[in-house]
Amino acid sequence: MIISNPVGVEANKALLAAADAAVLAHRDALAKHSPAELSAIRMEGADGTPTMFIDVLVEDAIIAAATAAGVNVLSEERGWVDVGSAVTLVVDPVDGSANAAAGIPLACFSAAVAIDGEFTEALTVWLHTDERWWATREHSEFRTSGRTTVAGAAVSMLRPHPRNWEAWSRVAETAGRIRILSCSTLDAAFVATGAIDAFVDAGSDTHRLMDIAAATILVGASGGAVLDAFDRPIGFDTDLTRRWSGIVAATAELAAELRALIQDGAASRTTT
Amino acid sequence: MIISNPVGVEANKALLAAADAAVLAHRDALAKHSPAELSAIRMEGADGTPTMFIDVLVEDAIIAAATAAGVNVLSEERGWVDVGSAVTLVVDPVDGSANAAAGIPLACFSAAVAIDGEFTEALTVWLHTDERWWATREHSEFRTSGRTTVAGAAVSMLRPHPRNWEAWSRVAETAGRIRILSCSTLDAAFVATGAIDAFVDAGSDTHRLMDIAAATILVGASGGAVLDAFDRPIGFDTDLTRRWSGIVAATAELAAELRALIQDGAASRTTT
Repeated sequence: MIISNPVGVEANKALLAAADAAVLAHRDALAKHSPAELSAIRMEGADGTPTMFIDVLVEDAIIAAATAAGVNVLSEERGWVDVGSAVTLVVDPVDGSANAAAGIPLACFSAAVAIDGEFTEALTVWLHTDERWWATREHSEFRTSGRTTVAGAAVSMLRPHPRNWEAWSRVAETAGRIRILSCSTLDAAFVATGAIDAFVDAGSDTHRLMDIAAATILVGASGGAVLDAFDRPIGFDTDLTRRWSGIVAATAELAAELRALIQDGAASRTTT
Repeated sequence: MIISNPVGVEANKALLAAADAAVLAHRDALAKHSPAELSAIRMEGADGTPTMFIDVLVEDAIIAAATAAGVNVLSEERGWVDVGSAVTLVVDPVDGSANAAAGIPLACFSAAVAIDGEFTEALTVWLHTDERWWATREHSEFRTSGRTTVAGAAVSMLRPHPRNWEAWSRVAETAGRIRILSCSTLDAAFVATGAIDAFVDAGSDTHRLMDIAAATILVGASGGAVLDAFDRPIGFDTDLTRRWSGIVAATAELAAELRALIQDGAASRTTT
């Protein structure tokens, strides 16, 4: 697949090599293993969460490709693989692994390039179809919807948990249309293209850096805003135990209203 | 795409012609029209709901193909197109039109064949990829997950509405994992294959016959059960103003527990 490239900027070669490796490893994993095998928990990852076998298979392929291309990798299971480069790929090998392992074809490879600790470009690839969304910090071929208010907005959400049921419900009741696709990076790509208006973790603190790193570039360069519901800065960090409640929105105004709704519901009373 | 056909039964030719017409018309619509054009409401359909332009475009192509093949069509916008055949295709031209029009590639052509008023076979086609799920009343190559209880189940739901918020929440709180894909017929295909355990309209009475007709065959022949949350029979009917709250489940036991949860929450207190 050719990445459309209106400004003559070339994508990082290690990033493309990692994406290609992920697509092939994912295809191979689905061909060779059953859903039960793919969803089996193989270990606790460096990020402190259980890692499925499908994650291990794809991550191994990505690390091999990226380190062969001379860059570091920060990923959920192995953590920080430092080959001494100024360049690090912050990678989610299979975002939506529960989907992928079960046979729901909504899962993505997603990575952000960090150079000396600053995100510079990002790529999300839908593993089922090899469709790709790429942008640099300065240039994106995509444009968000431009929506500024939650009322009437199409908002994708992480599924609710008991710990954030109230905040989740406030967002669901205020928005115009709710979806739960269970694939954060695909949702973020849809915000970048304007297919949906926002994607949120409504305060469950589920997001790890690799779930939202690509969004900061893809959506930021497409006119949108990415922030944390509780105002924690989102940036390169090798401490993989950190968590965020990411808000990925078409505009800064929409992001701010979603943040207020999640924090305490104040916005829902004043703006809708 | 070849439909796998382990038992030597051939798919109805009018059904295949309608599906092919839908795939081409959908592709053509996305190439020629903007999201705003595709989602514009063109008329109130025969089913009493607003019809988007994308629905009109794809339905017209389906009706032309099916009637050329000599069968009747029952569809959301035009209603009952009777060419005097004993065979009727009950068609959802673009299930998930809101997804399709916005640029979220989760939308399906779905149809059930009714012969003298009895459903005999069904086909659902994912319009973005042309992946197909087909079965007859007697034979399916798919198998549901076999799950019998809501606790721990992967359940897809229609999005919540104020009128069914409580029942929706009971299901969401009891199930193991919730998704909202906004495409009923794709969800039903995932129940047939075992990728998810159930799909429900949690009592909002949103489902029209064409949203669940294919599921009765696809999921029924794959070991699952399809019923209405309020015990209304689901069958061929040319009155398109009828509505159901469909429950599409891996087993009859799981369907019954979901029905009880939606009706009054009794099951959640006794079985989980």
